Amino acid sequence: MAMNENLLRELLEGVRDGRVEPQAALERLRRLPFEPMGFANLDHHRAIRCGFPEVIFCPGKTVEQVRTIFGRLVEQGGNVLATRAAPEVFAAVAKDHPAAEYNELARAVTLRQGEPCEPMGHIAVVSAGTSDLPVAEEARVTAEIMGQRVTTHYDVGVAGLHRLLARSEALQSANVVVVAAGMEGALASVVGGLVAVPVIAVPTSIGYGASFGGLSALLTMLNSCASGVSVVNIDNGFAGGYIAAMINRQAAK
Amino acid sequence: MAMNENLLRELLEGVRDGRVEPQAALERLRRLPFEPMGFANLDHHRAIRCGFPEVIFCPGKTVEQVRTIFGRLVEQGGNVLATRAAPEVFAAVAKDHPAAEYNELARAVTLRQGEPCEPMGHIAVVSAGTSDLPVAEEARVTAEIMGQRVTTHYDVGVAGLHRLLARSEALQSANVVVVAAGMEGALASVVGGLVAVPVIAVPTSIGYGASFGGLSALLTMLNSCASGVSVVNIDNGFAGGYIAAMINRQAAK
Amino acid sequence: MAMNENLLRELLEGVRDGRVEPQAALERLRRLPFEPMGFANLDHHRAIRCGFPEVIFCPGKTVEQVRTIFGRLVEQGGNVLATRAAPEVFAAVAKDHPAAEYNELARAVTLRQGEPCEPMGHIAVVSAGTSDLPVAEEARVTAEIMGQRVTTHYDVGVAGLHRLLARSEALQSANVVVVAAGMEGALASVVGGLVAVPVIAVPTSIGYGASFGGLSALLTMLNSCASGVSVVNIDNGFAGGYIAAMINRQAAK
Amino acid sequence: MAMNENLLRELLEGVRDGRVEPQAALERLRRLPFEPMGFANLDHHRAIRCGFPEVIFCPGKTVEQVRTIFGRLVEQGGNVLATRAAPEVFAAVAKDHPAAEYNELARAVTLRQGEPCEPMGHIAVVSAGTSDLPVAEEARVTAEIMGQRVTTHYDVGVAGLHRLLARSEALQSANVVVVAAGMEGALASVVGGLVAVPVIAVPTSIGYGASFGGLSALLTMLNSCASGVSVVNIDNGFAGGYIAAMINRQAAK
Amino acid sequence: MAMNENLLRELLEGVRDGRVEPQAALERLRRLPFEPMGFANLDHHRAIRCGFPEVIFCPGKTVEQVRTIFGRLVEQGGNVLATRAAPEVFAAVAKDHPAAEYNELARAVTLRQGEPCEPMGHIAVVSAGTSDLPVAEEARVTAEIMGQRVTTHYDVGVAGLHRLLARSEALQSANVVVVAAGMEGALASVVGGLVAVPVIAVPTSIGYGASFGGLSALLTMLNSCASGVSVVNIDNGFAGGYIAAMINRQAAK
Amino acid sequence: MAMNENLLRELLEGVRDGRVEPQAALERLRRLPFEPMGFANLDHHRAIRCGFPEVIFCPGKTVEQVRTIFGRLVEQGGNVLATRAAPEVFAAVAKDHPAAEYNELARAVTLRQGEPCEPMGHIAVVSAGTSDLPVAEEARVTAEIMGQRVTTHYDVGVAGLHRLLARSEALQSANVVVVAAGMEGALASVVGGLVAVPVIAVPTSIGYGASFGGLSALLTMLNSCASGVSVVNIDNGFAGGYIAAMINRQAAK
Amino acid sequence: MAMNENLLRELLEGVRDGRVEPQAALERLRRLPFEPMGFANLDHHRAIRCGFPEVIFCPGKTVEQVRTIFGRLVEQGGNVLATRAAPEVFAAVAKDHPAAEYNELARAVTLRQGEPCEPMGHIAVVSAGTSDLPVAEEARVTAEIMGQRVTTHYDVGVAGLHRLLARSEALQSANVVVVAAGMEGALASVVGGLVAVPVIAVPTSIGYGASFGGLSALLTMLNSCASGVSVVNIDNGFAGGYIAAMINRQAAK
Amino acid sequence: MAMNENLLRELLEGVRDGRVEPQAALERLRRLPFEPMGFANLDHHRAIRCGFPEVIFCPGKTVEQVRTIFGRLVEQGGNVLATRAAPEVFAAVAKDHPAAEYNELARAVTLRQGEPCEPMGHIAVVSAGTSDLPVAEEARVTAEIMGQRVTTHYDVGVAGLHRLLARSEALQSANVVVVAAGMEGALASVVGGLVAVPVIAVPTSIGYGASFGGLSALLTMLNSCASGVSVVNIDNGFAGGYIAAMINRQAAK
Repeated sequence: MAMNENLLRELLEGVRDGRVEPQAALERLRRLPFEPMGFANLDHHRAIRCGFPEVIFCPGKTVEQVRTIFGRLVEQGGNVLATRAAPEVFAAVAKDHPAAEYNELARAVTLRQGEPCEPMGHIAVVSAGTSDLPVAEEARVTAEIMGQRVTTHYDVGVAGLHRLLARSEALQSANVVVVAAGMEGALASVVGGLVAVPVIAVPTSIGYGASFGGLSALLTMLNSCASGVSVVNIDNGFAGGYIAAMINRQAAK
Repeated sequence: MAMNENLLRELLEGVRDGRVEPQAALERLRRLPFEPMGFANLDHHRAIRCGFPEVIFCPGKTVEQVRTIFGRLVEQGGNVLATRAAPEVFAAVAKDHPAAEYNELARAVTLRQGEPCEPMGHIAVVSAGTSDLPVAEEARVTAEIMGQRVTTHYDVGVAGLHRLLARSEALQSANVVVVAAGMEGALASVVGGLVAVPVIAVPTSIGYGASFGGLSALLTMLNSCASGVSVVNIDNGFAGGYIAAMINRQAAK
Repeated sequence: MAMNENLLRELLEGVRDGRVEPQAALERLRRLPFEPMGFANLDHHRAIRCGFPEVIFCPGKTVEQVRTIFGRLVEQGGNVLATRAAPEVFAAVAKDHPAAEYNELARAVTLRQGEPCEPMGHIAVVSAGTSDLPVAEEARVTAEIMGQRVTTHYDVGVAGLHRLLARSEALQSANVVVVAAGMEGALASVVGGLVAVPVIAVPTSIGYGASFGGLSALLTMLNSCASGVSVVNIDNGFAGGYIAAMINRQAAK
Repeated sequence: MAMNENLLRELLEGVRDGRVEPQAALERLRRLPFEPMGFANLDHHRAIRCGFPEVIFCPGKTVEQVRTIFGRLVEQGGNVLATRAAPEVFAAVAKDHPAAEYNELARAVTLRQGEPCEPMGHIAVVSAGTSDLPVAEEARVTAEIMGQRVTTHYDVGVAGLHRLLARSEALQSANVVVVAAGMEGALASVVGGLVAVPVIAVPTSIGYGASFGGLSALLTMLNSCASGVSVVNIDNGFAGGYIAAMINRQAAK
Repeated sequence: MAMNENLLRELLEGVRDGRVEPQAALERLRRLPFEPMGFANLDHHRAIRCGFPEVIFCPGKTVEQVRTIFGRLVEQGGNVLATRAAPEVFAAVAKDHPAAEYNELARAVTLRQGEPCEPMGHIAVVSAGTSDLPVAEEARVTAEIMGQRVTTHYDVGVAGLHRLLARSEALQSANVVVVAAGMEGALASVVGGLVAVPVIAVPTSIGYGASFGGLSALLTMLNSCASGVSVVNIDNGFAGGYIAAMINRQAAK
Repeated sequence: MAMNENLLRELLEGVRDGRVEPQAALERLRRLPFEPMGFANLDHHRAIRCGFPEVIFCPGKTVEQVRTIFGRLVEQGGNVLATRAAPEVFAAVAKDHPAAEYNELARAVTLRQGEPCEPMGHIAVVSAGTSDLPVAEEARVTAEIMGQRVTTHYDVGVAGLHRLLARSEALQSANVVVVAAGMEGALASVVGGLVAVPVIAVPTSIGYGASFGGLSALLTMLNSCASGVSVVNIDNGFAGGYIAAMINRQAAK
Repeated sequence: MAMNENLLRELLEGVRDGRVEPQAALERLRRLPFEPMGFANLDHHRAIRCGFPEVIFCPGKTVEQVRTIFGRLVEQGGNVLATRAAPEVFAAVAKDHPAAEYNELARAVTLRQGEPCEPMGHIAVVSAGTSDLPVAEEARVTAEIMGQRVTTHYDVGVAGLHRLLARSEALQSANVVVVAAGMEGALASVVGGLVAVPVIAVPTSIGYGASFGGLSALLTMLNSCASGVSVVNIDNGFAGGYIAAMINRQAAK
Repeated sequence: MAMNENLLRELLEGVRDGRVEPQAALERLRRLPFEPMGFANLDHHRAIRCGFPEVIFCPGKTVEQVRTIFGRLVEQGGNVLATRAAPEVFAAVAKDHPAAEYNELARAVTLRQGEPCEPMGHIAVVSAGTSDLPVAEEARVTAEIMGQRVTTHYDVGVAGLHRLLARSEALQSANVVVVAAGMEGALASVVGGLVAVPVIAVPTSIGYGASFGGLSALLTMLNSCASGVSVVNIDNGFAGGYIAAMINRQAAK
């Protein structure tokens, strides 16, 4: 659908050569207004520079739809990530792509094509409790398919502070930290006070009644008294891993 | 207004002696239904056993009203506490009662009458930041006028965890801890993880926009992953101090 | 994972004896920074002084996971409590530990090891209606596995005030009262006005539409006009029982 | 503006007498569609049967506007009530109508014209604390200007239950009870459990932070476990008094 | 459990006759503090004067529990109402009590014992749409089992105003109107503007997303610009019918 | 039930001819107050001028109920639309009306009777993502059964802005734009900034946790910084299509 | 800043004439990517076709800033509208532009330049109560400065339904209706049921406590059971008038 | 207060040399548990590696308090930043520190000491409207005092999309983008779709009623369909700038 730079160059050369009237070129430019301008290029640029995977958010799509989209993305040659994928989605995808992998906890399907760059630096993924693991794992899988190295620090909630403190050196060596926590979500603030790098806080929907489906942890993290904490949507481990990968890639370049 | 036990005994003796007809006694009992039953006694009982102060919540009352009520309570002979008192309230009260004291930060007027029992054990009052001090001080003043000993641990928010950890032994020696914190209120969870005694969490209304007037800290504290934390109303340092005093008094008896 | 005091002592003796260089000891201390410092001790201390049970919050864990954790905790020799446990969880646990007991209403598995201290004083657990019983029972089971004596006062909601008033003397004799109530949750305030000891209010999610899953009762309890009421999370009977046990143990020591 | 019944009768007689063509009458009816149908009559009917006052809600109106409207309503010959009236509003109205009265607490201006019917039965207005008085008084003033008898029972909040219980007989003799309460608003439920008549609950905006401007009391009252409680808007004493007057008038007719 | 007036009289006569010592009477009074005072009498009084049914709220109770309670209440000789009853609950109850009736829409079981008084006056129950019928019917069933006459006006929502206006005379003849409406709930305000009697508004949980489970209708009704509208909980047709019965009984006495 | 104009004319002619007394006519008019006045006519008028379909909102109705209503509406001769219809509803309807059609995505049943007017102008229906399609399709189906022409622009969310910009000319040629978007709903604002015609924004309930069932998109759209955006209820594609049809019909007349 | 079509044509002609190399043209196009594409044209187009005013939202701007911006917009030759303008803003603007007008109620400054087209059709602006007038007037002023004819129908809230019904014919003759209402906002639904054209509902922040600053009216309007109602932000009369003008202009073209 | 590494080494050497008994060392370690472990070092480490400023959040502090704290921080030799500082705060600080600077819009006081490192890369700060400038400027000031280079892109809200698109190349060259936007906050999503680097979204409290003090923009940003967006608290420009500085510093190292 996009008009690539070659076409634009060809058009301009047509004008130069007298094969295309300026008025006709004008019309054609107006009708395809944005394609020559870098948007498509942007996407291209991204693919080249970033090793960004193409991503499918599965909820609300049929198994067949995901399978079709997955196949199309694989043809483009980059890595592919399907999030919130039920086991039957993976089963269908794996038939077509035996190299696809499934992380049950994170409910994520990944397919790696070509070699990742050698990862530099690392991302620390931290979670408060066992119930927060699916979100933490979604962050990890996402960052890894984006070519980053991840260290995990699970089950280090603030109720047993010594477990977290025992990890402080490891956390301080990361370029960015992802914190997945439900209930009161205090872990993000405490980690934010321990490290000097950005903390991406992912509230989870784990908790008793007044956690209101993650609202409590969300507000906690937004109000963090530690200065380096920013927040993504409830249970959105994908976003946490994605942003962390963006940061670590820059830090390590 | 209350019918005390003596009156009830007298009434029954009147019946025995034939001075009062059973029907008349029946009528009288029905008309004064609850007084003989211990409610008034309860109040009396309280005054004796607890050294509870009489308390005036000033907002919505005129200076003159507070002054009048204060005077009436002083006459009853116990300690008196007026919370959320503006300076002009204190000025008016102090004219009548030169022994009254004013805590500007807590906006509390206290008048102590008679000797407090020797305090045993202690309550730790902890606050996250300087802006939480009025609430923390209200808790302290309240607990002290109730005859309890209080140690204070201010400005120990989780963004600088070492300040709090340096206090952990002191906190562990208390019978109960009051934690006043705004913003994300994570301090209550962290303290709850450090001590083995009840933590009374007081959310404060301090914070940026999404603290929503203390809602954020309130939810954090209600969802605390530490097991010993219970919560009172936003900015209600009085309640925090009051409950802590109840607990410490029992622990120390 | 923790470095216990013996190890620390051994390390220091090694330094004294010249077997370990100060620099090496320094390195080792830095790498295991918090273990020798009392955190592990704290946990140990707790186990000794408190008879605190080890607790498993079951939701989000598989039957197999709970079974494994339960077994590990049993080996530590203390009491074990699994909350929100489905019957199949109990079935799995009971195979390994025939002495484990199940409270169906509270959905709690308990295993008692060794003798509890003789309980002193008592905790009153009060509930408004029949539908609040699971929460009230969770509080009772929790307090009892922590070695405390509990008296129960069920179905005494404020719509039939005389049922509650008939219990007032019994309530006044407790060291702490746990109130579980849904709908409007007014029971906590009324009980708070009847007794002179701390009231731990547990809002339940019982009610018509505008109870908003327990929010109504939660707000009621936070705004209680009675001074001794503090609040825990919606339906969190465990927290209510836990805090009450903390208070009663101190009061009765 | 309204077409009264006389006009309609005249129109129909004109048709009968041949002075008006059916088609012309049809047109005229269509153009003035609703007037003959009872709406205006309804208002008239109300004025006759109910002794309803005409009411001005002052906020958002200038003193001059209130004064003008007040004058116009006085000319209609019935009672007039201006709610939420600032003192300067009363000053302006009183110049024109020396018989107007002002209730400072309720901020209500009333003017009584003609004799009220002899009141029968009574309305009990109950308030929890001193700070709820303005709302309770607005209810009382409203009910009285509507010709009803009111008994007041102030400062009987549930924290001191005996004060309320001492009033139970008096409350039980009323045809309807208005309860004004802030903070947790539990008073409505307790009163609802004591009486067998409708309770109109008026939440007030009095309270600490988590009362959220009356939301807490509002939810409490909506979730009342007592069956006869219905609720009006926060601080809307006028509505409470108005509905109570409607009920008492019917009960007493 | 209750001590009735006869027993109290007997006690006092025993004192008079010297069979009971005043001190012993005093003890006995203290131990049974509230029974002689009217509470039990109140319940008794209610049963006599009101023909109030005994009510069972079924949710959270097993079929067996409801059946047992139902049977016990039947023995007391008055009418019995079980709300929110599933068909299997009715099946179980009907085995014991063949005279029990079931309203499927309202999910209510009723059993009438003895003759209702001849109803006087009537209650109008109004509903906006077909989906609001279960709530409206619950109100109707409740009011009828309480011995009141009910007229129903269903499917008269404000989007087709003429249907409602065609009922205005009928509505104006009622002593009280119950309005059940979901979505925006505007019907309560419009009815409130048409009649001069109390309107009990029952918000229902019917609606698209932003009705937030009935919150929208609830707020609408609380903010009604018509003066005679009071509100009960979302979907609480029982409360609507109960209060309306209270009002109509008084109006018609 | 309605009294049509003919009847009114007949009545007036009866008065003219002396067959009906004015007083009797008056009575009759009062008893049927609104029918002659245009309400029924309004509905009639609508049907003629608008080609409005009759609409059935299926949720909360049984298959049999929908089938019956559908049949009755078909008899009136206009188009019929059933929204939120399950497949089994369509199956039942299609038996009676083989010409009925079903849009699975929109879950809408339509039956077209008679010829639509030639549509003029067009409505652009825009959606952000694949998951928003059911809502977008409901809007499209609704507008089409109302006789309007619709162009669709799906999957043009703001995360890939060039896809949207490529459609800007097409959007600018519409008379009105419907935008269905979930998550953050930013698409409505961006479209609003691109076109000079009204934008009807339909928030959808698609999104991660903090979309709170569509609340996020709803607020976004209400706060749109673009001036021509108005909003309907969450997931209410029907309303979006309906209003757009109203606007386009006027624009194209 | 924008590159207009002439420049683009010139560039292409340069390429044709050999004065500009294709590669250089390519670079230049990439650097100025969007200007030739119609955005600037769009704005221009708007100005020509719509007579849209330029609008200044005053809050958060100093008097001096508004004055400067106002002047710059006047120079562009179209109409200018400043909303939410304090009197001192008008004073400052009027010094520079004596023809500017001020609507005190709406707090809007307008300056009309050139002749408006002859308005066709009309917009009905409806308000519930006197307190809603500022919002209604803002809508009126906005629509009028956009060249549309407006009829106003104020103080026709649903509590006195006959006042509204008396206007129904007038409302039915409009092409679009703007409804400004606070409190419960039911007016929008009722008007929506009376007319067959789009209704733009503007909730206002007028009301007692539980109106929550306009939230109640907002939800009411979003949940309207009448099908043609869409909603704008609380108190946003400007948006209401703006959208209505968009619709009426199309209807009347 | 802290025990530095030297002291720890000295202690260990004392043990080695026999001057300190292992048991005594053990005791001493237990009493000063955390100091040797790097916390104080952490702070030191930060100061060295980061050039982090020391920050004072002024609200809730008196002018005198800020002045004192400011002075103390200056003595530590690093940069100092005081946020939310009123002009009188600056006046007081400037007396002591003539080199302090004040940004009126951002209400920020800064004092730079020593030379910043040469900045590499840049942060783009983007704002939607003029009213968002104070927040955007706070972000800029914060990032600059942390030694980073900032480019600003103000007044590029989505309602005039071409202004934003004209900046897309500039934005794409940044290492991180801060977006400050109120109202519906859609700008963050649109920017997130344009760039391949992290976007820190700062919701502002600017907007009409239903922006609810920034809640609308906050939810929008949390639900962003663009993958690289994380969010900080409402109006918290400081956090936005701080995190952006953390990221840019890593990217540029």
